[in-house]
Amino acid sequence: MRIDAHFTLAEVDPATLSDASAVVVDVVRATTCIVEALANGALAIYPTESTEEAVRLAQSLGREDALLCGERKGVKVEGFDFGNSPHEFAPDAVAGKKLVMSTTNGTRALGAAAGARRVIVGALTNLGAVAQAVSDDEALALVCAGRNGIFSIDDALCAGHLIRRVVESVPGEHELNDAARAALALAEGQEPTAGFLATTAAGQAIAAIGFEEDLEVCGAVDRHDIVPVLHDQAITLAGA
Amino acid sequence: MRIDAHFTLAEVDPATLSDASAVVVDVVRATTCIVEALANGALAIYPTESTEEAVRLAQSLGREDALLCGERKGVKVEGFDFGNSPHEFAPDAVAGKKLVMSTTNGTRALGAAAGARRVIVGALTNLGAVAQAVSDDEALALVCAGRNGIFSIDDALCAGHLIRRVVESVPGEHELNDAARAALALAEGQEPTAGFLATTAAGQAIAAIGFEEDLEVCGAVDRHDIVPVLHDQAITLAGA
Repeated sequence: MRIDAHFTLAEVDPATLSDASAVVVDVVRATTCIVEALANGALAIYPTESTEEAVRLAQSLGREDALLCGERKGVKVEGFDFGNSPHEFAPDAVAGKKLVMSTTNGTRALGAAAGARRVIVGALTNLGAVAQAVSDDEALALVCAGRNGIFSIDDALCAGHLIRRVVESVPGEHELNDAARAALALAEGQEPTAGFLATTAAGQAIAAIGFEEDLEVCGAVDRHDIVPVLHDQAITLAGA
Repeated sequence: MRIDAHFTLAEVDPATLSDASAVVVDVVRATTCIVEALANGALAIYPTESTEEAVRLAQSLGREDALLCGERKGVKVEGFDFGNSPHEFAPDAVAGKKLVMSTTNGTRALGAAAGARRVIVGALTNLGAVAQAVSDDEALALVCAGRNGIFSIDDALCAGHLIRRVVESVPGEHELNDAARAALALAEGQEPTAGFLATTAAGQAIAAIGFEEDLEVCGAVDRHDIVPVLHDQAITLAGA
């Protein structure tokens, strides 16, 4: 399998994505929230780049069935139903609902991956399910959201652990690009725990605004056995 | 000490550079060539972004004393005296000469670091000398040239080994950004050898055009005990 990691969105080359399954990773916290919401019964999640677009889309979906979710600088957008904290996406809040979501880095990362053969939403919470889902693919691309265009070690570590599981479980030769090799090396020396997330730039940023408890969810490896897939502007469960 | 690594030039934040010593790293091959040339007696090296600018500058310096050096896609620019192979910068070729140099990634990286308090040229070949030179600084920035805007594991590994030496030799607490932590983790698991360089994207690219032997020089750790510094558009030896 060819395995390419991209540590920032500027490094994503659309030409190399077209034959690949792209796994978009924004551990703290967008992709963790998406996994949480779908695992807890949300029907679909519609990522949008801007908050204005989110409002328009929620109106066209029918405002009573659609929840508006998103953050800017980590804080819930004014007038939105939810921010970007995985604790908000509990079953009683999201079951049977459509969610329109706009986050700073996560939804941009989904946009950057849009040219891939298949776009999967990955987090530590669904690591094993994603590794299993891509095991027959010829090419895998890890699209790390990063933080405002900058390398984010939590996303790189998650990508590395996904690569580690794929390399260990899929037989044959694997061709890794430089970033995939570095991510794998990182994973070989560091388990992805909530405690580690608390030491990262992203973890420190959300702790500073009072969301440190979110990291327990973000670091809960294999908490859910689901594979969210982006298709026609909506993220739903593969096979659902 | 505050230690920030930047894996691509787009990630360099000029605002964080102003109080830092910036070490620019392009192991394969620009910064290795600069170290080689100055160690072998070149008077000064003038980096330029474009080849046209290189030609103009060489003329204004006096064409008989100035050598034109540089590559595009790894190959010597037509009409230039040298390309970007460290073997070209031997004592009999460069002693007493001024070199005007334009390379694809390396000279751009020097430009990206220009706002730093001090700009140092780093390579594996002068790792120990650079670690020593920055040991009293309050802030250190590692500017990895990367390859056309993309993460390059050879530069990250060199940055990581420099960080490793600084962290081991400078007492006190060190505050590393995410990329510096990842680079250090990489260095803790991988020695920077010519054999490793041959497995990297940059190493494979120059091997494909016949320069595999250059990697022996690029991977010769501590081959020279010099610290090239960029000042007023010229790179010269610190203290010279």
